[in-house]
Amino acid sequence: MAAYKDLTKEQLLELKAELTAKYKEYQGMDLSLNMARGKPSVDQLNLSMGMMDVLSSDCDLTCDDGTDCRNYGVLDGIAEAKELLADMMEVAPANVIIYGNSSLNVMYDTISRSVTHGVMGSTPWCKLDKVKFLCPVPGYDRHFAITEYFGIEMINIPMTSEGPDMDLIEKLVAEDESIKGIWCVPKYSNPQGISYSDQTVRRMARLEPAAPDFRIYWDNAYCVHHLYDDRQDHLIEILAECKRAGNPDLVYKFASTSKISFPGSGIAAIATSLNNLEDIKKQLTHQTIGHDKVNQLRHVRYFGDIHGMVEHMRRHADILRPKFEMVEDTLERELGGLEIGSWTNPCGGYFISFDSLPGCAKKIVARCKKAGVVMTGAGATYPYGKDPQDSNIRIAPSYPPLNDLKLAAEIFALSVKLCSVEYYLENN
Amino acid sequence: MAAYKDLTKEQLLELKAELTAKYKEYQGMDLSLNMARGKPSVDQLNLSMGMMDVLSSDCDLTCDDGTDCRNYGVLDGIAEAKELLADMMEVAPANVIIYGNSSLNVMYDTISRSVTHGVMGSTPWCKLDKVKFLCPVPGYDRHFAITEYFGIEMINIPMTSEGPDMDLIEKLVAEDESIKGIWCVPKYSNPQGISYSDQTVRRMARLEPAAPDFRIYWDNAYCVHHLYDDRQDHLIEILAECKRAGNPDLVYKFASTSKISFPGSGIAAIATSLNNLEDIKKQLTHQTIGHDKVNQLRHVRYFGDIHGMVEHMRRHADILRPKFEMVEDTLERELGGLEIGSWTNPCGGYFISFDSLPGCAKKIVARCKKAGVVMTGAGATYPYGKDPQDSNIRIAPSYPPLNDLKLAAEIFALSVKLCSVEYYLENN
Repeated sequence: MAAYKDLTKEQLLELKAELTAKYKEYQGMDLSLNMARGKPSVDQLNLSMGMMDVLSSDCDLTCDDGTDCRNYGVLDGIAEAKELLADMMEVAPANVIIYGNSSLNVMYDTISRSVTHGVMGSTPWCKLDKVKFLCPVPGYDRHFAITEYFGIEMINIPMTSEGPDMDLIEKLVAEDESIKGIWCVPKYSNPQGISYSDQTVRRMARLEPAAPDFRIYWDNAYCVHHLYDDRQDHLIEILAECKRAGNPDLVYKFASTSKISFPGSGIAAIATSLNNLEDIKKQLTHQTIGHDKVNQLRHVRYFGDIHGMVEHMRRHADILRPKFEMVEDTLERELGGLEIGSWTNPCGGYFISFDSLPGCAKKIVARCKKAGVVMTGAGATYPYGKDPQDSNIRIAPSYPPLNDLKLAAEIFALSVKLCSVEYYLENN
Repeated sequence: MAAYKDLTKEQLLELKAELTAKYKEYQGMDLSLNMARGKPSVDQLNLSMGMMDVLSSDCDLTCDDGTDCRNYGVLDGIAEAKELLADMMEVAPANVIIYGNSSLNVMYDTISRSVTHGVMGSTPWCKLDKVKFLCPVPGYDRHFAITEYFGIEMINIPMTSEGPDMDLIEKLVAEDESIKGIWCVPKYSNPQGISYSDQTVRRMARLEPAAPDFRIYWDNAYCVHHLYDDRQDHLIEILAECKRAGNPDLVYKFASTSKISFPGSGIAAIATSLNNLEDIKKQLTHQTIGHDKVNQLRHVRYFGDIHGMVEHMRRHADILRPKFEMVEDTLERELGGLEIGSWTNPCGGYFISFDSLPGCAKKIVARCKKAGVVMTGAGATYPYGKDPQDSNIRIAPSYPPLNDLKLAAEIFALSVKLCSVEYYLENN
């Protein structure tokens, strides 16, 4: 099939009629499919059911150091959990605080603390006229929601195939003291599945921000979330790189087991320098006596160690991989050569990113919805929900069963085609 | 024995020698006992070990409404957990949000949200020159720590046997718009074990604060924590009373299962009006996707319903009651009639409050420590750690085994006597 841009008006009209007929067929099927959120599927949840068996009333719920996990105490997490998550995060246990069930919550609290109390003695952000964050785009909607909620101005930073545009970032942070942070999903980024290149990580660690309370918010959400055994992205570890660069306090690293064990019932963590940890603990000690140590112990007993976790993630990959491939194959088969969209083929993470012709994303998502396929709202991958090109759509293949996903991907591709035909009918 | 105040100097000196000899005997025992914190004992923790068995890999972790507790979602808690905690908190499930593992964390977040975003559209407290809280004293040190951390000025409100001094509270909140809240532990208060009288609750619900964003922080930490079957304090339910009084939005009520199941691995909740809930959820949706639903389900399956919880609390009481009685009997036997201190005899909660002669509390606690008995720091029960009389000491009988507790109570009483003898030697 020829590229749509080369079709005549008559060809486009004929094509439109054909596609519309097909679309109506799908509509007649009264479907209810969802590719909106990065939710693990039921098959994936079933992988972790053994978590429910590792602790029982016969078990001793005591840590190696004698801590009774059933009682109050231990602000920063049990030693065993620190070791497991430190291995997962590629840092030393001493650099880790184990939190509750959600890294999003940790990120929110980190921003909130900076707003009310500043960072290591800096002026609390609520006392400043203006606070800004850099937001690589497309990015994660919940990051943007937190910064927007706190009235922090967000500045779009274009993503490249190597990560965010470092030239721009270096320039902005050096000249503007009101820029206090940058949101990063450095590995298998949300939504593009891009992993930052070595050069990008090195330049990140060497930023020279005007603001001493600038921090990199390094959300390593997909640190062990590979799809393939033989194609795995590897990041330079950012804490170590910052230390080598003489900027040991520059980064907060976040992670959780949400997509490893159970979302909502996992454990989350922050890893950062000892100076930052001290600053954080000053606040944390007022917020809680300690997080759920029994659940920490449950995770440690279930996974055993990082090798156990890695093997567990291979089983997740076995379920996820065919889904990603199904979507990618469908897009290639249906849209290849038409020049009406491009998409990523990530080897990890939870998303495929699709870019349509300009001004088409909202229409495509609306069209999908009318045929029973819910996508992430167009615009959601940009701060304030405003995609300046109206072209980016996040595809989340994880949740639906493979057969549903096949249908959903076909309907998505069909919607792209229909909207693209209309685009050329209007714009040629 | 005569009251110390009536002893002659010679009698006091003789007594001092005798007490000192006894004190040295205890010191020689090289003890390490702790009556500092309201921690459940190992026996109490063992009561809840069945919690570890209710969920297994054979179980369906689905709620009645079809929610899979293993996946993301449900911001405000599963319906079953809302029902259980609503029954515990004596409110309707619709008025409840289930949180994570700690009500302290919920209270912290409530203050933090008010600081950054205000209350129902009010000016964020961080934008105000002055914010004040009323603090019934003696009270809970962790409450005071939160308000101090946020730079909120604390005003002492004396406790009476019916609760805090309502005349003073009514006057202050009516005339000072910078007063934004009051900390209350209304049932079996920390540390006195006092429950607010009907009249106190009624007057609380009818406060007419100058500040529209004034709220009562009603920490019902010991709502089902009775020591006796036949002597149980009962509070007028504050949400209902506020509604009847025409002040439906006046109160936030907090509770958790920390001292019911496992501290640190329980579930916490807030109960408040629908208006307040709406305001809270606007924030919560940015902070988390949802709390630990598997643990919510675990609690529901274990307790079954509120009756199951009440029966469970009777088993806690069977362990706690002899400890409270041991301390009270020791104090009565050792200190009765000496007029050197008074103490409470609560029928619930986790603490006994002791008031020494003025200026003696710090010395008594220090003396206990030198004989191997750790008490809550003197002053901790007051804002800023400053007990103006230096007389209040919180006794926490729950954690040590009964034999240890016996020794600890004796050493405490002995320390009181020694410090009191010295007081009269210095002051007569």
